[in-house]
Amino acid sequence: MKLVRYGAPGAEKPGLIDEGGTLRDLSAHVSDITGAMLSDAGLDRLRALDVAMLPEVTGDPRFGPCVGGIGKMMCIGLNYSDHAAETGSKIPEHPILFMKATSAIVGPDDTVVMPRGSQATDWEIELGVVIGTTAKYVSEAEALDYVAGYCIVNDVSERDFQNKLTGQWTKGKSCDTFGPTGPWLVTRDEVADPQALDMALDVNGERRQTGNTATMIFSVAQIIAHLSQLFTLHPGDVIATGTPPGVGLGMKPDPVFLKEGDVMELTISGLGRQRQTVAADR
Amino acid sequence: MKLVRYGAPGAEKPGLIDEGGTLRDLSAHVSDITGAMLSDAGLDRLRALDVAMLPEVTGDPRFGPCVGGIGKMMCIGLNYSDHAAETGSKIPEHPILFMKATSAIVGPDDTVVMPRGSQATDWEIELGVVIGTTAKYVSEAEALDYVAGYCIVNDVSERDFQNKLTGQWTKGKSCDTFGPTGPWLVTRDEVADPQALDMALDVNGERRQTGNTATMIFSVAQIIAHLSQLFTLHPGDVIATGTPPGVGLGMKPDPVFLKEGDVMELTISGLGRQRQTVAADR
Repeated sequence: MKLVRYGAPGAEKPGLIDEGGTLRDLSAHVSDITGAMLSDAGLDRLRALDVAMLPEVTGDPRFGPCVGGIGKMMCIGLNYSDHAAETGSKIPEHPILFMKATSAIVGPDDTVVMPRGSQATDWEIELGVVIGTTAKYVSEAEALDYVAGYCIVNDVSERDFQNKLTGQWTKGKSCDTFGPTGPWLVTRDEVADPQALDMALDVNGERRQTGNTATMIFSVAQIIAHLSQLFTLHPGDVIATGTPPGVGLGMKPDPVFLKEGDVMELTISGLGRQRQTVAADR
Repeated sequence: MKLVRYGAPGAEKPGLIDEGGTLRDLSAHVSDITGAMLSDAGLDRLRALDVAMLPEVTGDPRFGPCVGGIGKMMCIGLNYSDHAAETGSKIPEHPILFMKATSAIVGPDDTVVMPRGSQATDWEIELGVVIGTTAKYVSEAEALDYVAGYCIVNDVSERDFQNKLTGQWTKGKSCDTFGPTGPWLVTRDEVADPQALDMALDVNGERRQTGNTATMIFSVAQIIAHLSQLFTLHPGDVIATGTPPGVGLGMKPDPVFLKEGDVMELTISGLGRQRQTVAADR
């Protein structure tokens, strides 16, 4: 299934995209797409519905983040060997973890607003993993059983805030609107291999990032197993699993960052497309 | 006012501690103590109540975290000059920020559970600042107007997870139960000067940390002003403002860490007392 949340910010309704690409409303069957209904049993209840009988949604509604009430947004740094190289970083021994404030999470096509003083706002396409079942001390072998599904995350990053404000990357990762998430939560049964997904990010129609999840240093299963040794992963938590090469910070001869009016477009195979316009706070 | 949440985990009721120290129930007037009622107007509605008419709560209920539904738990690192010295760190140029996963937050007297493999679980008494009003781009001069009140936070820290797992402190700060918060949310009108509060932490009755918020490198107002340049502070967000000297990592001749059965007791002037027993996950 391709689950979505559509409507005005803070008032999103649950829906799904059917096989023909039509948005259908799920409000009669579930109050929202949140951790509370992302278990295997919860998803099976939706799978049992007759999709053709669900009301079609007309018009062209906004999509919200594909999961509501995200408890924690965990982000893995430098998880593609070629991206680590472009930033001049060593291959880490364990997955690097930082948190993105959940207040940064927005819909897949919402405007990305550069905060006052921003000189170095950058893009990062990432595979998002949505937890479906409470996970603690799980093994790599069983880790994917705890996944509800996958989505696109743009881990928007202010590089000066991240690297020049004495500390911890979260400063540059947590700005409002810096976490477009969605459009779809694609349930894991529809993602044959999360380590074989093509990823691409364009800025103003020019390809900037090209990658495939096959080149992750730590696989989705390894990341989940590692994090679950540290703390509990709860249903509705999201892990952004790192970005492939091609970020603005790594461009030659000089870094290139976002400017007002730029348009980012992101795709991952089977997970849909995001499109954000960049604005600046004044 | 001294606001509290009491009862079983996940089912806490709102209450207050009256001037005689009696717990009284607020359920008839507010559904919970969360960001939704922490504005000045929301708190004024509670102040207008006749406290003597509120039902007394009998027995000895557990206290939960003094704020429910905390959106983000922001933590400031190395914010006391003498603590920075004991850890061998330089005085930072700006407040160091990391996030503690909100899934780590527990009540003030709940058991602190060391995760499997923990060898270096440590204590950190901190002044917690609870945001009451949405804050973005606020000045230092006006910053304290956005505060609902103050509380104690024990920023429990696994030093190996924090420092030896390749990255970002949040790994050692976000373990389940590593965020005791409370017992009371003391509204800001009852805290004459947040920069003049004595702090003390004992382990098994021995004094380990002694400090006063007067020796913070960055004041509460400076921290709020700085963070609000990066992102929006929402009602119910909490900032843990750093710890004074005396953590286990800094002990001489060798670091001392927590072991099963240890008891931590924490006090800050006017903000009450926390008491946690330490257990180990197996």
